[in-house]
Amino acid sequence: MPAGETETCPEGCKKDLSVSNLYLALVHYPVVNKNGDTIASAITNLDLHDISRTARTYGVKFFFVVTPLVDQKVLTERIVDHWASGAGARYNPKRGEALQLIRVRESLDDVVAEIRSREGCRPKSVATTAVNRQGSISYARCREKIVKEDVPYLLVFGTAWGLSDELFQGVDFTLAPIMGRSGYNHLSVRSAAAIILDRLTARDRVPDGE
Amino acid sequence: MPAGETETCPEGCKKDLSVSNLYLALVHYPVVNKNGDTIASAITNLDLHDISRTARTYGVKFFFVVTPLVDQKVLTERIVDHWASGAGARYNPKRGEALQLIRVRESLDDVVAEIRSREGCRPKSVATTAVNRQGSISYARCREKIVKEDVPYLLVFGTAWGLSDELFQGVDFTLAPIMGRSGYNHLSVRSAAAIILDRLTARDRVPDGE
Repeated sequence: MPAGETETCPEGCKKDLSVSNLYLALVHYPVVNKNGDTIASAITNLDLHDISRTARTYGVKFFFVVTPLVDQKVLTERIVDHWASGAGARYNPKRGEALQLIRVRESLDDVVAEIRSREGCRPKSVATTAVNRQGSISYARCREKIVKEDVPYLLVFGTAWGLSDELFQGVDFTLAPIMGRSGYNHLSVRSAAAIILDRLTARDRVPDGE
Repeated sequence: MPAGETETCPEGCKKDLSVSNLYLALVHYPVVNKNGDTIASAITNLDLHDISRTARTYGVKFFFVVTPLVDQKVLTERIVDHWASGAGARYNPKRGEALQLIRVRESLDDVVAEIRSREGCRPKSVATTAVNRQGSISYARCREKIVKEDVPYLLVFGTAWGLSDELFQGVDFTLAPIMGRSGYNHLSVRSAAAIILDRLTARDRVPDGE
């Protein structure tokens, strides 16, 4: 596609560029543990708080928490209810404004189907990773696609030691890892989500000065 | 100072531009609560983990945790010891690599004095805030200063509802708040620290594409 042109969804949806058509998913299965085995990880309370606050800051539509484990779904929904409509909502209403973006779903396929149903066309999914993977796309390219293309986008984050290989097979793109200044690549998923949303969507970023 | 020139420390230190002369402080006193009263906040375990991992990623020299409360100092040092040399170091050595950047100090004045002693000149301090304050500097300007000036810099973050007014009086600069896309300005300090370090120091950022 030549630079400057807008790609239109083949299914005919009309993306409203005045708000972001961006969705976010935090995957607890399938992810890998430190030995590379595929596991279902536990929900971390502060992932819900930090990532929903970041999502709310950057205009993300929904923050999908993906887990097939029934007890973990119940726990997540209790936390969200506390802040969105329970005692937490009275103590700090701004927190509820963020946590009410959360939707708990069983699988990434369910998330994709729901966005497709909501938007009228299939979202393009972008996996994130802390390591270099062949064919990954740059932040500049990904930002351009999200801003210019007339389709919804779904950013996919992994918990534990990251998304499993099978998940990378099913996405449209994989985003390049965040390189800091040191070669150390062990950011928390909360920090990585903040940096990535800022790089891909912020309006008050600065051009590279070095 | 004309653009492109390098400011040299009047005390004659020689900044090594191949590594960052950047320090970070997380202040637990003096900060304000939701009513605007000055308080000492409690240490949050995940602040230590997330911010030290971010600091390590972006080449920060030390991550100073500022609290005058003895029990909180002891708690912080126990957490750091667990990951830097205890059982945590064997379970996940990469975590210890980050947490060993932590130094617990009683006040921001102590932190400034320690950096001055270490570097041979007084650091310039930059306060961060979620709200607009008169005279705040942009990310582009702050990045340029950190990269080009021959002096150490200290980024100061607040906990609870943010740094107290008296602290803003004592710093050299205040950085503009992070504006996302929505007007919601309630990021966690963990997310804000990640975004700010990325904006001010990352080598693989992208120019503004919008």
